[in-house]
Amino acid sequence: MNTSHPKLGTQTVAVFGLGSMGAGVAQSLLRAGHTVYGFDVVPESVQRFEAEGGLTASVADAGAAADVVVSVVLNAAQLETVLLGAHGILPHLRPGTVVIACPTVAPAFARRMEAACQAREVHYLDAPISGGAAKSARGELSVLASGTDAAFAAADVAFAAIAEKVFRLGDGAGLGSAMKAVNQLLAGVHIASMAEALTFGMTQGIEPQQLVDVISECAGTSWMFENRAPHVVAGDYTPHSAVDIWPKDLGIVLDIARDARFSAPLAAAALQQFLAASGSGLGREDDAAVAKVYARNVGLDLP
Amino acid sequence: MNTSHPKLGTQTVAVFGLGSMGAGVAQSLLRAGHTVYGFDVVPESVQRFEAEGGLTASVADAGAAADVVVSVVLNAAQLETVLLGAHGILPHLRPGTVVIACPTVAPAFARRMEAACQAREVHYLDAPISGGAAKSARGELSVLASGTDAAFAAADVAFAAIAEKVFRLGDGAGLGSAMKAVNQLLAGVHIASMAEALTFGMTQGIEPQQLVDVISECAGTSWMFENRAPHVVAGDYTPHSAVDIWPKDLGIVLDIARDARFSAPLAAAALQQFLAASGSGLGREDDAAVAKVYARNVGLDLP
Repeated sequence: MNTSHPKLGTQTVAVFGLGSMGAGVAQSLLRAGHTVYGFDVVPESVQRFEAEGGLTASVADAGAAADVVVSVVLNAAQLETVLLGAHGILPHLRPGTVVIACPTVAPAFARRMEAACQAREVHYLDAPISGGAAKSARGELSVLASGTDAAFAAADVAFAAIAEKVFRLGDGAGLGSAMKAVNQLLAGVHIASMAEALTFGMTQGIEPQQLVDVISECAGTSWMFENRAPHVVAGDYTPHSAVDIWPKDLGIVLDIARDARFSAPLAAAALQQFLAASGSGLGREDDAAVAKVYARNVGLDLP
Repeated sequence: MNTSHPKLGTQTVAVFGLGSMGAGVAQSLLRAGHTVYGFDVVPESVQRFEAEGGLTASVADAGAAADVVVSVVLNAAQLETVLLGAHGILPHLRPGTVVIACPTVAPAFARRMEAACQAREVHYLDAPISGGAAKSARGELSVLASGTDAAFAAADVAFAAIAEKVFRLGDGAGLGSAMKAVNQLLAGVHIASMAEALTFGMTQGIEPQQLVDVISECAGTSWMFENRAPHVVAGDYTPHSAVDIWPKDLGIVLDIARDARFSAPLAAAALQQFLAASGSGLGREDDAAVAKVYARNVGLDLP
């Protein structure tokens, strides 16, 4: 767990998006002693944030005070609204402020946001995050970031509070989002392949717990297999990461791929399985629930 | 490395198939002090085996002498020929001998072979192996095995010489092959997803080495990603495991799945990529060469 770094001093940070990931980012910043302004469309999220010591203000006032803006919103459209919308914060930021942009977006979009910020002498980091709500709350996120050296320098203090690992992927926006897209392609395919393999094995009479125990020690294993297969075995679909993440994230992957005329048959097949899960009412369950699509298609009872 | 187990005594073993995996099995048995008869259709393989101390004999004589038969042939058809063909060994085996059947086969086929052996009071282990040629030569294979307790007891001494890990998956043939099929489904999908993700990332301007370094530390990683992606980065397609393994093994997976009316879209998509690799002349290259299909389709130069 990150604690405060007194020698680094404290800063003023505006956090946009106080959902499961953003709330953890805000908590980590507060715990490190920073002054944190929070914004969310959901009043309950803002009230919880205030109860934890967070501040509210107008976008103009928070923007004028901020050293750092962290945008932990859901997607590109929300990120653009936060920065450039009718009530966007960019016009209010001081030169030298850094925007840390966390949603998974297309690399070209990230470069456009960076250019808009740089036109106002504001730094921009293309900085998709991973790690889930629990790691976010502990200040232990992983960040796949790209941007100028000056942008990284301006973000150092905030990263010390919220992140365990910051990968510096290159100079300028785009590479952070590209790497996140690569990771999401693999992660989505591997969750679906976990579900496919586990239910396939069950049709052949293998006990699900034995499948987890054995495959975890074989060449067929993956980080996602070891993390998600136990959810299916336990019949526990508490949404640590929901099914509905994947129509969004694999959708972004395939949008980028289409623009590049890149044929991605595995990502496309995995997306169809997550769409089937979402379309049949499982969107808010844990993403391991994609196993229910496979089980239903073969008349198999899951644990 | 396994060495001899003097207290276990030595046995007489007949090894069918002296290819890359079978040669290692035979070497490991010889190193442990056992008497080993070897069979292969390729004369050079038999000569190499004899130079290492192996013996040759008629199938009838080897069968009469054998405590253990290890079949390291390529597929179900070859296994059936070895056991039940015109020159098959089963009629020559003494009661109490054990057949260790290593190819990846359909569970129903494994049960049929077990029944044929049991009708002659011969034990049968459904025992697909993994680990590759190097581990085979060192006596460090992993075995996914199922069969009766008596069959496992009869195979103990041979396994001590050839295997590092023996998973005991249940009583009776079928579960060993089923678990192997599950593992191959995942392994094949993960090799193809490695290729898809790596080449996708390269279209977005990320350096291939950076993709390997970063993804290996992220949730998108897999055993196969970490093992095979470096082959693509190095441009080294020396066949540690060849492309042509996958049309065979994913073909078995999908045959079993079809019999079970199990829909396996990711395995099916991965198979198409390996077929495209094999069909375009890459069948004998390392299976990481499936990346060349992706690269060709998008006009990308690989390292």
